[in-house]
Amino acid sequence: MKRTTLLYAAFGVDDAAWLGGFREQAPDLDIRAWPDIGDPREIDYVFVWKQPLNLFDGMTNLRAVFSLGAGVETLLAGGGLPAGVPLVRMVDPGLATGMTEFVVLRVLHYHRNMHLHEANQRDGAWIQLRPKLPEDRAVGLLGLGNLGASCARALVGLGFDVRGWSRTPKLIGGVETVHGEDQLADFLCGTEILVCLLPLTADTDGLLDARRFAQLPRGAFFVNVGRGRHVVEEDLLAALDTGHVAAATLDVFREEPLPRQHRFWTHPSVTVMPHCAALTQPKTAVRTVLDNLRAHLAGAQLRHVVDVARGY
Amino acid sequence: MKRTTLLYAAFGVDDAAWLGGFREQAPDLDIRAWPDIGDPREIDYVFVWKQPLNLFDGMTNLRAVFSLGAGVETLLAGGGLPAGVPLVRMVDPGLATGMTEFVVLRVLHYHRNMHLHEANQRDGAWIQLRPKLPEDRAVGLLGLGNLGASCARALVGLGFDVRGWSRTPKLIGGVETVHGEDQLADFLCGTEILVCLLPLTADTDGLLDARRFAQLPRGAFFVNVGRGRHVVEEDLLAALDTGHVAAATLDVFREEPLPRQHRFWTHPSVTVMPHCAALTQPKTAVRTVLDNLRAHLAGAQLRHVVDVARGY
Repeated sequence: MKRTTLLYAAFGVDDAAWLGGFREQAPDLDIRAWPDIGDPREIDYVFVWKQPLNLFDGMTNLRAVFSLGAGVETLLAGGGLPAGVPLVRMVDPGLATGMTEFVVLRVLHYHRNMHLHEANQRDGAWIQLRPKLPEDRAVGLLGLGNLGASCARALVGLGFDVRGWSRTPKLIGGVETVHGEDQLADFLCGTEILVCLLPLTADTDGLLDARRFAQLPRGAFFVNVGRGRHVVEEDLLAALDTGHVAAATLDVFREEPLPRQHRFWTHPSVTVMPHCAALTQPKTAVRTVLDNLRAHLAGAQLRHVVDVARGY
Repeated sequence: MKRTTLLYAAFGVDDAAWLGGFREQAPDLDIRAWPDIGDPREIDYVFVWKQPLNLFDGMTNLRAVFSLGAGVETLLAGGGLPAGVPLVRMVDPGLATGMTEFVVLRVLHYHRNMHLHEANQRDGAWIQLRPKLPEDRAVGLLGLGNLGASCARALVGLGFDVRGWSRTPKLIGGVETVHGEDQLADFLCGTEILVCLLPLTADTDGLLDARRFAQLPRGAFFVNVGRGRHVVEEDLLAALDTGHVAAATLDVFREEPLPRQHRFWTHPSVTVMPHCAALTQPKTAVRTVLDNLRAHLAGAQLRHVVDVARGY
């Protein structure tokens, strides 16, 4: 009997991790690497990223296509995907793990006054600072999707006073949630450490401007792991210069890589991260794709199938 | 009926936090502040730190004495404590919270390569680094007492591969534990981030020397929140200079405050903390004392009573 065939056609990525991961985790499958596809009629599944034109030619028995990334706009735009074949976007638990780690790390960093301790070390000054208790520290999350909810749960576990704001109502145990533009000013007033985990939409583009930063209490901290376009960068710099925002950690920027001459690089209150707060992790992502594929082989519905009309 | 009387006699501390905390949390008690003690025969309980001589004179109805600190050696040595009155040492949940936060913070800092990202920011270099998954990161805790166990549980919750070493066997869910000097070399070989939470005893004084640092894998990280005397400081500096130990966070030192000319202050791989990874927190400590006092009034045994012969 013919083995199930998975074609690996991902470009510009670490093949050792991705292709190697599939071969290691699925020795039972016939895994082929483009361009050595053999008879295209034998291909059951394709794992794809930045695929060549005409990749799918002749694949008359194709059952599904898995995307390496969560965003599939390029694939939909010009990929030649055969009509009726389900396209699966990436939902990676390793990505949520990485984001949660990074948000916890930076919240603790500011909560524990590490920005002051670092300055004191540069001055050779031995100055003890009594930390606040986490129950007395208000952490506000903008955005309570998959990643925001994961961060919220971890911060609740550490004892923080966690609040969340989202476009539509959400319920997360231990988190005081509010929603809608009407409640944003109140939410910001009560937030000492603000974390942006929003998706980028027409409503959230440029949301964090001078008016919104002014609504934070003086000396608040800001962590942006959403998108660069959420922030009016000049307004953030002005708030940092006056100390109204005490310090910021920025993983995302309007232009990436961040231009060499941008003030964020050298601002004493800014930590610049090169957009790697969370990355798709081959190990967990390969496992997730294979779980989905195997359940499909066993007769289950595929999970995370893209709605082609909606675009995600 | 006479109200229960608590005398506050703590010196050299933040009275607003401590005395204010008692008054706020126990409006039902008659709280007096030294020297306004009134009739000493009316004093039921004393809360004490660095007390004056003869503090307890005339307190013929004293039921118990609570110490602000965990260490009571000074009080026992020359405090004039009336014979037969129980002395209660401080066990503060806020202290465990603070230690756990700090250890999680610094483990995440190294796990997520923040020492490299900080250097890249100084160079204006945009370099993405793929984080390891926490399950692939071995964190080794030296010492599994109250504080070590709390840190271990938090790190397990974040998905790390947590191992622990202690003098005597310990069991903590999700933690691979070993014990005794025979197993220390193997334990260090498998540890990428080493955290010292040991008590200082004759056995642990100078434990971490050139031989022990050499047993860590090259590029390991070190966090010392135990005592300065656990470390042979020149040996740690040598290991940092060669890069065998990639970076260290030190909260404790052989001499504190750390002398101005000490190389730790300016070593590029060392983060100096002024012995405040964890401090007794008035808010939680006051709550703990009052819980103990109220249970005692209701007829329960006092908790955390010092064994005077043993000294702690």
